[in-house]
Order: sequence, then C-alpha cells, then structure tokens
Amino acid sequence: MAPSVASRFALTLSRTARSTTSSAIRDLLRLTEAPDVRSLAGGLPAPDCLPVQRVQRAADAILVREGPRALQYGPTEGTAELRTLVASQVVAAVEDTIVTTGSQQGIDLVVAALVDPGDTVVVESPTYLGALQPLTAARANLEPVPGDEGGLRTDVLAERLAEGLRPRLCYVVTEFANPSGACLAPERRIELAALAERYGFVILEDDPYGALRYRGTPGPSLRSHAPDHVVRLGSASKILAPGLRVGWLGSPSWLTPALVRAKQAVDLHTSTFDQLLVAELLADERWLAHHLTRIVAFSGGRADALTRSLAVHLGTALSARRPDGGMFLWAQLADPALDSTVLLPAALRAGVAYVPGAAFHVADQRGATAGYGHLRLCFTTLDADGLDEAVRRLSTVLT
Amino acid sequence: MAPSVASRFALTLSRTARSTTSSAIRDLLRLTEAPDVRSLAGGLPAPDCLPVQRVQRAADAILVREGPRALQYGPTEGTAELRTLVASQVVAAVEDTIVTTGSQQGIDLVVAALVDPGDTVVVESPTYLGALQPLTAARANLEPVPGDEGGLRTDVLAERLAEGLRPRLCYVVTEFANPSGACLAPERRIELAALAERYGFVILEDDPYGALRYRGTPGPSLRSHAPDHVVRLGSASKILAPGLRVGWLGSPSWLTPALVRAKQAVDLHTSTFDQLLVAELLADERWLAHHLTRIVAFSGGRADALTRSLAVHLGTALSARRPDGGMFLWAQLADPALDSTVLLPAALRAGVAYVPGAAFHVADQRGATAGYGHLRLCFTTLDADGLDEAVRRLSTVLT
Repeated sequence: MAPSVASRFALTLSRTARSTTSSAIRDLLRLTEAPDVRSLAGGLPAPDCLPVQRVQRAADAILVREGPRALQYGPTEGTAELRTLVASQVVAAVEDTIVTTGSQQGIDLVVAALVDPGDTVVVESPTYLGALQPLTAARANLEPVPGDEGGLRTDVLAERLAEGLRPRLCYVVTEFANPSGACLAPERRIELAALAERYGFVILEDDPYGALRYRGTPGPSLRSHAPDHVVRLGSASKILAPGLRVGWLGSPSWLTPALVRAKQAVDLHTSTFDQLLVAELLADERWLAHHLTRIVAFSGGRADALTRSLAVHLGTALSARRPDGGMFLWAQLADPALDSTVLLPAALRAGVAYVPGAAFHVADQRGATAGYGHLRLCFTTLDADGLDEAVRRLSTVLT
Repeated sequence: MAPSVASRFALTLSRTARSTTSSAIRDLLRLTEAPDVRSLAGGLPAPDCLPVQRVQRAADAILVREGPRALQYGPTEGTAELRTLVASQVVAAVEDTIVTTGSQQGIDLVVAALVDPGDTVVVESPTYLGALQPLTAARANLEPVPGDEGGLRTDVLAERLAEGLRPRLCYVVTEFANPSGACLAPERRIELAALAERYGFVILEDDPYGALRYRGTPGPSLRSHAPDHVVRLGSASKILAPGLRVGWLGSPSWLTPALVRAKQAVDLHTSTFDQLLVAELLADERWLAHHLTRIVAFSGGRADALTRSLAVHLGTALSARRPDGGMFLWAQLADPALDSTVLLPAALRAGVAYVPGAAFHVADQRGATAGYGHLRLCFTTLDADGLDEAVRRLSTVLT
C-alpha cells in the first residue's frame, strides 16, 4: 500500500487482506518466465494435450444448437447437461452436484460455508498451496498432519482427535497429491471417513489428478465411504482445459443449499458457454476415451523421461519414486545439509526452476516448518529433451 | 439442514452461511419460470440482443490464432488484450485494471479486501440485491441512505458523517440503478467523491448499465473525481453476453495487490477463452458500434412500449418516469394502502410477475423497511406484445 495516499486518508485493508500473501508458486512463476529458464516449477498441462480442434467443433455446434441460451444467464447450480454428466464422478445425486468456477472455487465455497475465524482445519503436510489461500483468508486455525507415501497419516490424526482436537474440516487430495504425488491408501480412506463420522467434521476430498493414472488402480472415493461428511471436488482442468475454469463438486444434501447461496454471492454462476463446451466434450464418449488415453500416455511418458534423466544426471543425490500418475514428482535431496529454498537462486542462475518443498508446508503453532529437503518437479510442461536439459542444469547446482 | 444427519454428528454451517439467505430475486425467478407467467421480474437481456453469430466467428478466430493458449491457465489479473481494451472505461492504468468473473465477483473482491465483520458499509436505499449478498456474508453493518430521482442523497450521507458515521465502503450504482433507474446527479458525484476523501472511505462505483442509454448524456465517473478512493466496475453482461461471466474493475493502485490476491484465492483467474472472446468483440470497433446502436434502440423501444402500456391499462394507479436507459422501470403504486409484496401471489395467479420493492431495501437498525409501494418491472425480456399483455394482467390485480 502506498503510504502517501493510504495513510493520509486512513484507508486500510481488511484483516483478511492484510493477513493474505500472494502464492509462492504464482510469484515464482513470474520469476521463471524468462525464456532461458527450463521450468519444472509450473503446474501447466502440456499445450499439446489441450483439445483445440475439438473445442472449436464444440463451440460451433453449441452456438448453432443452443443459440442465445449459450450466452445467457443460467442457474447458480450449473447447467443440467453438465451436472448430469459429472454427478457419478463426484458420487452425488444430480441435485447435490454443483458446477464451480474451477475446483479452486469449490475449495473457497466449502470454506465459506463451514469455517469461521479460529475454527480448526486439518491439512496434510505438505499440501496444495491453493487450498491454504482460502483457509488463510477465512482465518482458519490450520492443523498440519504429516503425510507419507500412503498420504495423510490417519494414525497421527486419530491420536490428535483422541487428545481433543476438534476440526471443522479436513482437506485432502486423494490421488497423486500436489506436491507429494501420494495416493491415500485404501485402509486410510476407510479410517479417515470413520473419524469424520465419529468426531463430526467434514472432509473436503479434492481429486483433480485421478484421471491421470498411468499405472495401478484408483482407491474408492472418500465420498462413497461417508456421503454425509464428504464434499468431493472434480475438475475439467487436468483432463480437458484449465483455461475454461470449470469444476464441480458433490455435496452432502444438508450442505448443498449453503454452497449454492455462497456461489450466488461470489459470481452468480459459472460461464454458461464454458459449461456447455465441457459437457459437449464429456458427452462425446468415444472422443473422450481416445483423448484420455492419449494424454495419460503422453504424461506417463514424460514422467518416465524425468525419472530416467534424474537417475542419469543426479544418481543418488536426489531420490524420488517413479510417479504412477498426476503431474508432479516429489524429490528429496540426499544431503541433509542442503536446503532447496536456499538453492533456488543458484538454480535460476543455472537456467532451471523448481518449487522448493518449504512452500507447501504450513508454519505450525510451534513455529517449525518442513520440506527444506524436497523439490517439486512438474514433468508435463517440458518434452523429454527439455526435461533432460533441465535436470542436467539442476545437477550443476546440486552435485 | 437435515437434522437427522447434521445434528446427530454436530455438523454445522459457518456463522456466515447461517446468516446468508438466498436472493429473493433468484427464488422468485424459480416461481416465475412457469410458461403461462409473463415475467417482468427477471433481469435478463433480450435473447435477440445476444450476438450468437459474432461469438461463433470470434471463437473460430481465437482458437485458430491462439491455439492452446485459449485453453490454458492465465494470469490472475486477466489477459493483456482485455485489460488494455477496458482500462479507459474504468478510468485506470492497465496495471490497475483487473478482469473479474462478472462484476458480481468485483463486488465480492472489494468487500473481501476492505470489509471486516462489523464494519459499516453505506448502501443506497433501494439498492442492488446482489451487492447485499457479499456484504451480508462479510457481516458488514449496512447503513442504508435514501436515494431519489438524483440517486443517493449525498446531503443525508453528509449529515450522518458529520454526526460520526465512519463507513469503510459506500456502494453505489451511478447510471440507471437497479432497481430505481436513477442516475447519480453530477453535483452529487462531486460531493460524494469529496466526502470519501474527507472521511477516508472507499466508493464502489458499479456501472453495468451505462452503455444502455437511449436519451441524455452520462455524468462523469466517480473514479475520475477521486481515483485514490474509488473502485469502478464494468461488465460485458449487459452489452455483450451475461453468460460469459466477464467483468472488470479499475482500482486505486494501493488496493490492486490486495484485490489480485483475493481473486487468486477464489478462482485463480477468469476463463481465458471467455476473456479472449470478449476482447475480440470489443476490439471490433465497427461491429461493436453497430451492435450497441442496435441493442440501445431495441431496449429503448421496449422501455417506451412498457411506458405506453402502463398508461393505457393502469392510468394513474401506477406512476413511473419513462426510463432513459438501463433495463428496469421503478413504478410506484398510487394507493398507499396497497403493498406490492402482499399483491404478488395474486399477480402470479393472474399470470404476471414482478419484483416487489421491499426486496431491495435493507431492514435498517430501527427495524423499518420500505419499498412496499414499489414494483420493479424489467422491460428487456418481453417484446411489445408480451409487455402489453403483462401490464393488462397486472391491471386486473391493481385496479
């Protein structure tokens, strides 16, 4: 704020605005946009995977078939076509399926409907930065619970609940979490759902990456275990096009009206045209199956390429599991004296960018943060040669 | 909330969610969707005015020219094309021009950045319902200040400020306000801007209808009078297409970063494709001039048709000025014993719908409400015959 104007007139921001800072990822993305930097920092789908021609055909078809309706105001809950198509994916009746302006808005709506300032919200540590922003804006009391290769440590959560922790909400990415790449283990899904029912909290099950699975089988959704306690989020961003900002959620019936009212206040409804475009593509089953097969193979190939390049250029200096899906590889520095945040400026000078692990950790009540030994590497944006060159540059900094 | 589930598990909504009720307009729209009701209640642009063919050409051109960029993540602030095109309209530098998901989101972002629970916010009485929703959700202390044919009574506001009122924000629609149709008088614009500077509050200047002027000349924007104290909102909804959910705002520089951070938390950014579509249409100056001329003539014709029908069927039972622009006619019942809220069920039975004036009034601290003598009539959705039949049906209830 410019003191010359703001302080002279006693103009101040709200407490929320003063306590909110810009996402480290977004700020980093600005630094890494230089053309000479090979960026592993972003989280963008590969441009080659965005269905430009199919959207063009869909836009024509929709405007011819629907006419003015495609450009007119629509219901807050979303268009009937899209809600019907995605309801089963979020394990909800059509009436409890709401279209959102990206799944980011889904997080924001659930927080608005459930969280008052000071309420406790459990997040996995590390967790998705974009979830921390609405939670920080709502002045939630964030309670990080550690995760491992099997996702959120439900045994740790159970202990804290037994000790008296009373959260309103628990946010978790169940498949190929950002940044850790972990999938929540099936037995932990059962335990987490049971804890929500026993202690009376809501689980926000975020699943943007589940369709990007190259290997293995997905676990059952949390919503299927505890439908009265789980809001499940889905998104067109990773399977079709993030720029359309179309997501959806499946809600317990008791919560649906509050989510619709919250959405009405923030943007009335999601773009009618974009909703019809997404519905057109999702309804074209043959095309969709082919498209998903293609992007899964494409991303899987890049994940394997990054894994190979890491082995070649960095050997044991950096350890990481080969991802089975998603967009991110969560790598750990072998040398405990190294700090990925401290190393980042040198990496940028060497022409490579990543997101340091500390960015995904909540500074907890005891003042500690974690993640200094980790790097989040996105493998979808660069091709195999680009990934190899990025890793070669990284090796000049880390070894 | 279903008590069986929610109370059993002690699941409750946030204070905000419990205090927010659905918009009376939205609830009414549901009731008035029956095919046998001629509705003057909605606020939809005429379908004939939505530029379906031009959007189709634009969609083709953008997908061919921009390719994957049209479907990819974009900056939170908005695409450069659109920000550059609309900056002058909101009297701001391009850096202080932010694209929003409709101007409804603009209201929500400004409230989030400036208003803490209990903060005082001045609203004109009557005012736009959609502004009351984010303000209620923020638990603002609403201070209604009466308006008349010249808009907000700045003399009344000046008195209250002199008596000690200290608002954080003042929300006002400057041209053809919803519901009153009033334009803020030029001398009141100067006074309101001076009051904001003197007492240190921000004005939220909402102007969705200014381009829909059939007669007369617009006043200067509030932002031009006090650029450090005014956020000005604009929208593609009334001039191009509401279904695209594209709006924009011009902000004082000191406030811009807080608005961008707030937007990042709620939906990352507005649909890239829809932003490019709107920019394509706004940049086509010849087409735009022709389109605006056409929709202004179209709406003006309908405003005049409604005015004529009211004179024919209702005579002096209902008084209203002929609108010079916008979408709404604010009519007053001559008989002080009649209450437009009480009359609505009979009107619906007679096959006509309107929005009762009480819906646009804040129940103020002294428990009084107002507007029982008013009806808001939208003239853009029905054609001249439809308007005439609606007014004829209304006359059976009012006379």
